[in-house]
Amino acid sequence: MPSQSPKIAFAGLGAMGYGMAAHLVRSGYAVTGFDVYQPALDRFLKEGKAASAAKTPKEAVHDADVFICMVATSVQATPLLFDAESGAVQGLKANATIIMCSTVAPAYIDELQSRLKGAGRSDLRLIDSPVSGGAGRAADGTLSIFASGAKEDVEIARVVLQCMSGKLYEIPGGLGGGSNAKMIHQVFAGIHIAMANEAMGLAAAAGLDTREVFEKLKGSEASSWMFENRVPPMLDAGLGRYSAITIIAKDVGIITQTARTHHFPLPLLATAEQLYLAALTQGWGPEDDCVLVRLYLPPSQPHLVATQAGHSSSNNNNNNPSAIHHNVTWETIRDIMIAVHMAAITEAMRFCEVVDVDVELMYDIVANAAGNSKVFGACFHGMKGMGWRVEGVEGGGEVVGRLVSLIFFFFFTPLSSCCISLFRSLFPYLTF
Amino acid sequence: MPSQSPKIAFAGLGAMGYGMAAHLVRSGYAVTGFDVYQPALDRFLKEGKAASAAKTPKEAVHDADVFICMVATSVQATPLLFDAESGAVQGLKANATIIMCSTVAPAYIDELQSRLKGAGRSDLRLIDSPVSGGAGRAADGTLSIFASGAKEDVEIARVVLQCMSGKLYEIPGGLGGGSNAKMIHQVFAGIHIAMANEAMGLAAAAGLDTREVFEKLKGSEASSWMFENRVPPMLDAGLGRYSAITIIAKDVGIITQTARTHHFPLPLLATAEQLYLAALTQGWGPEDDCVLVRLYLPPSQPHLVATQAGHSSSNNNNNNPSAIHHNVTWETIRDIMIAVHMAAITEAMRFCEVVDVDVELMYDIVANAAGNSKVFGACFHGMKGMGWRVEGVEGGGEVVGRLVSLIFFFFFTPLSSCCISLFRSLFPYLTF
Repeated sequence: MPSQSPKIAFAGLGAMGYGMAAHLVRSGYAVTGFDVYQPALDRFLKEGKAASAAKTPKEAVHDADVFICMVATSVQATPLLFDAESGAVQGLKANATIIMCSTVAPAYIDELQSRLKGAGRSDLRLIDSPVSGGAGRAADGTLSIFASGAKEDVEIARVVLQCMSGKLYEIPGGLGGGSNAKMIHQVFAGIHIAMANEAMGLAAAAGLDTREVFEKLKGSEASSWMFENRVPPMLDAGLGRYSAITIIAKDVGIITQTARTHHFPLPLLATAEQLYLAALTQGWGPEDDCVLVRLYLPPSQPHLVATQAGHSSSNNNNNNPSAIHHNVTWETIRDIMIAVHMAAITEAMRFCEVVDVDVELMYDIVANAAGNSKVFGACFHGMKGMGWRVEGVEGGGEVVGRLVSLIFFFFFTPLSSCCISLFRSLFPYLTF
Repeated sequence: MPSQSPKIAFAGLGAMGYGMAAHLVRSGYAVTGFDVYQPALDRFLKEGKAASAAKTPKEAVHDADVFICMVATSVQATPLLFDAESGAVQGLKANATIIMCSTVAPAYIDELQSRLKGAGRSDLRLIDSPVSGGAGRAADGTLSIFASGAKEDVEIARVVLQCMSGKLYEIPGGLGGGSNAKMIHQVFAGIHIAMANEAMGLAAAAGLDTREVFEKLKGSEASSWMFENRVPPMLDAGLGRYSAITIIAKDVGIITQTARTHHFPLPLLATAEQLYLAALTQGWGPEDDCVLVRLYLPPSQPHLVATQAGHSSSNNNNNNPSAIHHNVTWETIRDIMIAVHMAAITEAMRFCEVVDVDVELMYDIVANAAGNSKVFGACFHGMKGMGWRVEGVEGGGEVVGRLVSLIFFFFFTPLSSCCISLFRSLFPYLTF
């Protein structure tokens, strides 16, 4: 039980938010929950006597010291906060604290500040405080939290933030810093999730034993947190829920949109985003993001990664099986993953400098969170010393050299590469 | 001289806008110009007695029947229209017409309507009317114009729209239709400009005679309007100005952002956008968009396309010259262009259906404008009959088959392809 016990209102009892709110109740806080989904509220009431439920955001906050917003998007957050009849800002008492935990664009944090001022509520303390770590760590109170705002405001919110976090990072520079740090972290997350899917799709389509490939890659320098987390449910169906395509698609969209305003290219992340959008167009939005692997498989064999776990196949659906067997091995996929992870460091860390987040702080955040990879740990400082170029990586040139030797187009031809890849794809609108 | 002569106010005397405004003066209209760049106004005053200049948008519109907005972006348009002191909306007389010719997001047209209502100016007639054709056709009054809005409003604006246009398209469905049609057209423009640059970069880097390759491609089924328009200034410096990188980067950004809200993938256009952003990061924004070819060339040889015009070279800067000479011929580049142009049709026309613009109307627009290609004319109707799949194209499968045989990765591996391409690139932050 904390020594001081601010009363908490909590909006957004989804996969992450529910765990966070329930953990606060279990830690002794009085928490009033709000969600548009009634079953989530009913379940929340069973968490204990300190858990209560409200019918509107305004009602939820009426005696709250702290209002935590953990809805999925800024589109949901705006009416939650500012609706003229039922919005939280209408009901919050003077000098209360709003902790914005939703992942939103850094520009939205600026917008929130302006709107609070416009609503005559400059008294409210705003903390920009996105989180990372998934539903499990949310429920355990061991999230990574990236808090930014006025120093005295963060101080007031600290006890609540600490209760929810295993790692509490205070991002300097005022409001927006937290969202910028989360954004850089999600550059890694967005690329690594897609890479995990592409790696296993390639292994399955090449007729390899997918379980053996997974184990070998996991034990190699090509592994990443996302790879180890996302591949097991592809190999064995029913290993539980992770995170919906809609979530990573939304996060990545925030990043590419923000990068555009900075006139900054993120080619790998932009490619990954197109894969997420293709999955949304397929109607897979609510499914786990490891469903992305189906984009790489024949529509008739959506479970090929699972069916080929434990044995290789000489029968695959590709047009040219002989060439596959000659060429794609687990080492090929390893080299691809290492190269993509190195390129992700370049993209993310150069963008990190553009948005002015401290690079060593970012190292600490990524190395301890879902954006981590073995390449990140091994190459970060070498690449930093070379302006984020691959020259700084011992052996990096050899990996890339092996990759380049595999392809005919050793020129820089992104449009051609994209097109050729598309024409080989199983996008329903581009097949032969 | 038109039989009816509405008084016109014209904001935005840039490359396109100046020509449009000057043509209106030459056609007998009284036009009051406004621009933040004084030399443009000074020049405009010399166009004739009917040309006048104003110091603010509000002053420009004080006796105008029609206000034409041709500034570069919605960020410029908003204060121009709505500034509390000097905005045009403050000064326009009752029932006047606003013709929005700037290329803006379809969502911005909705926002304009709301803002006009919010400002108590629902009396003003709004026409969503983007244009296409470049500075030359602007000055000649032969632009393609895509007008949408309430029927009676378009009728009132018709005489002015016709004066500026060679092809006046009325897009049905009310406001936003014009911007949607322009957006679909720019999918082609954004891909074809990048493709023209990639084709000539590849030719130069492969040591081919770039002028010979250009002539052969121009005469082949691979040619496009953009290819014929953009390549000559790469071959012979000083052939005049076309269009700045900033313009196409802005247009493409509008499209990928709008496609994201529709959860629709545009992988080729997204790849092209990253090239435009890379060029902006290089500081090339104000330069012609054919400067993009430099991304494909060694930094020490930015003019390689021009220096290799008229003779091939056995000396090139690639690491593996022997492989180049064995493999890249003008026919390789032809096949790439045909494949990219086919994929562009798929992307653009499926998106056209999503935003609900009539596909046959779109055919007419593109076939007569800068988005045209020989593949477009040859393949459009066959692909339409097959749901925009390449199966509808006679010989299409063979072109793609030849391409696929060139590459090792015959799987669908966009992330790997992008990465491999990046590692071969001359992006300063990814070179070896």
